[in-house]
Amino acid sequence: MSSDLVRFTIAMPQDLLEKLDERAARRGIRKNRSEAIRDLVRDALVEDSCADPDQETCGTLTMVYNHHASDLTKRLDDVQHDHCDEIISTMHIHLDAHNCLEIIAMRGSVAQVKEIADALLGLKGVKHGSLTTTTTGEAL
Amino acid sequence: MSSDLVRFTIAMPQDLLEKLDERAARRGIRKNRSEAIRDLVRDALVEDSCADPDQETCGTLTMVYNHHASDLTKRLDDVQHDHCDEIISTMHIHLDAHNCLEIIAMRGSVAQVKEIADALLGLKGVKHGSLTTTTTGEAL
Amino acid sequence: MSSDLVRFTIAMPQDLLEKLDERAARRGIRKNRSEAIRDLVRDALVEDSCADPDQETCGTLTMVYNHHASDLTKRLDDVQHDHCDEIISTMHIHLDAHNCLEIIAMRGSVAQVKEIADALLGLKGVKHGSLTTTTTGEAL
Amino acid sequence: MSSDLVRFTIAMPQDLLEKLDERAARRGIRKNRSEAIRDLVRDALVEDSCADPDQETCGTLTMVYNHHASDLTKRLDDVQHDHCDEIISTMHIHLDAHNCLEIIAMRGSVAQVKEIADALLGLKGVKHGSLTTTTTGEAL
Repeated sequence: MSSDLVRFTIAMPQDLLEKLDERAARRGIRKNRSEAIRDLVRDALVEDSCADPDQETCGTLTMVYNHHASDLTKRLDDVQHDHCDEIISTMHIHLDAHNCLEIIAMRGSVAQVKEIADALLGLKGVKHGSLTTTTTGEAL
Repeated sequence: MSSDLVRFTIAMPQDLLEKLDERAARRGIRKNRSEAIRDLVRDALVEDSCADPDQETCGTLTMVYNHHASDLTKRLDDVQHDHCDEIISTMHIHLDAHNCLEIIAMRGSVAQVKEIADALLGLKGVKHGSLTTTTTGEAL
Repeated sequence: MSSDLVRFTIAMPQDLLEKLDERAARRGIRKNRSEAIRDLVRDALVEDSCADPDQETCGTLTMVYNHHASDLTKRLDDVQHDHCDEIISTMHIHLDAHNCLEIIAMRGSVAQVKEIADALLGLKGVKHGSLTTTTTGEAL
Repeated sequence: MSSDLVRFTIAMPQDLLEKLDERAARRGIRKNRSEAIRDLVRDALVEDSCADPDQETCGTLTMVYNHHASDLTKRLDDVQHDHCDEIISTMHIHLDAHNCLEIIAMRGSVAQVKEIADALLGLKGVKHGSLTTTTTGEAL
């Protein structure tokens, strides 16, 4: 992977450029224009790569569940142990007397990461869950 | 609105630039690099603007329904006539003996367009629907 | 396909049910509870099926472009004629002196519909575009 | 909040019901039909509530960055300390010699959580990031 910086010139209508700069300012972005454009390119590449089931990815699964649900903690543990090669680490937060937030960091193919998320979210007692996939950083 | 072209130089790691070029080639994009980057900027601006309920937008509502559903055609017409200032045009396609595809072009604030979509999708007999919002083109 | 109505009982915590009913009321949905739940089921099935490249789908492509862009109208026509088996109909709206809204109804596999959308959105001069895929209605 | 179970009957076309059951089987869901429907209802409620900037939410920010980027680790820390009321916990994973995966659990209004995510993702050197919002569990 070559990370040598290449410089090149692009053309943009003035009003589009102003809007790009305003957008960065509005979001409090402490980046120059090159970095703002690199961000847009990387976002598009990550979005594409997450559509490919074989692509290696980092996945974050965010789940909320009631830890009083019969046996749920044990079943969540069982599924996680079945996939300990892909699951890197789990963060657990006690939201209140009943509810837990559990965030699971995974690394594997997009297909594997989705399969593990489905297996966990399919357990009875899980209230809500959502999977995010991102890059492993190597290709960007 | 000024559409004078401004030229400026950006820096990008070589491998990121290669991936950007590969992406354009893979999608069969007949655009140069400037245009590919302008596309990413415009996509981000449209996405932002569609999050603002007061922003003027063009909306496309795609609906599939069974025209045999009791009275549905009449009720769809009634709702559309209540909003004839925002609804520009409707395209109707007979998918098979039972199913209709109806695509409705709207122009109004993001909030208005969403309200009309909810009113139509809420009618009994509508099988599926989905709203897309885009730009009116003026600001881009 | 059997569309005989089956009745079955489900259990739901009272507060979740109240929120479901409030949601329908808030969106002005003139549907009973069965229909609100059927909507959620159909949405999930459509979302799943659109992830399968071979699935037959209806696609709506919404595009905004400047019709003054050199040659663009002709190039848009050429691409559309190359895919006249999948493109059912096109609705064109003159937004202002410069901007056009063009909405294209397609029917084909998810992969075909995406390929056509990429070919059109890749043309220089297209400001923004967005593809929605839905059901052909047969399976729902 | 009442979590008493209410039982009620819904009607569904037989083929739609079969597809719902197949979907659960395909995803390996070890849930009965009531639980599968409750999942769809909760997903819709969470999606709605995340559109309201004042709604309390749990947010997970997933970021990938190169820890060699000048000063970035310090700047990430500074922003996080400015928001220590909303940031509950941070999980850090060393992906390779260069890349870090950092996952930040937050709790606050949707608007606050988005603002913190923008401030962090806006730092130069962050390669990719993505924010997920979910429920605090109380209302579901």
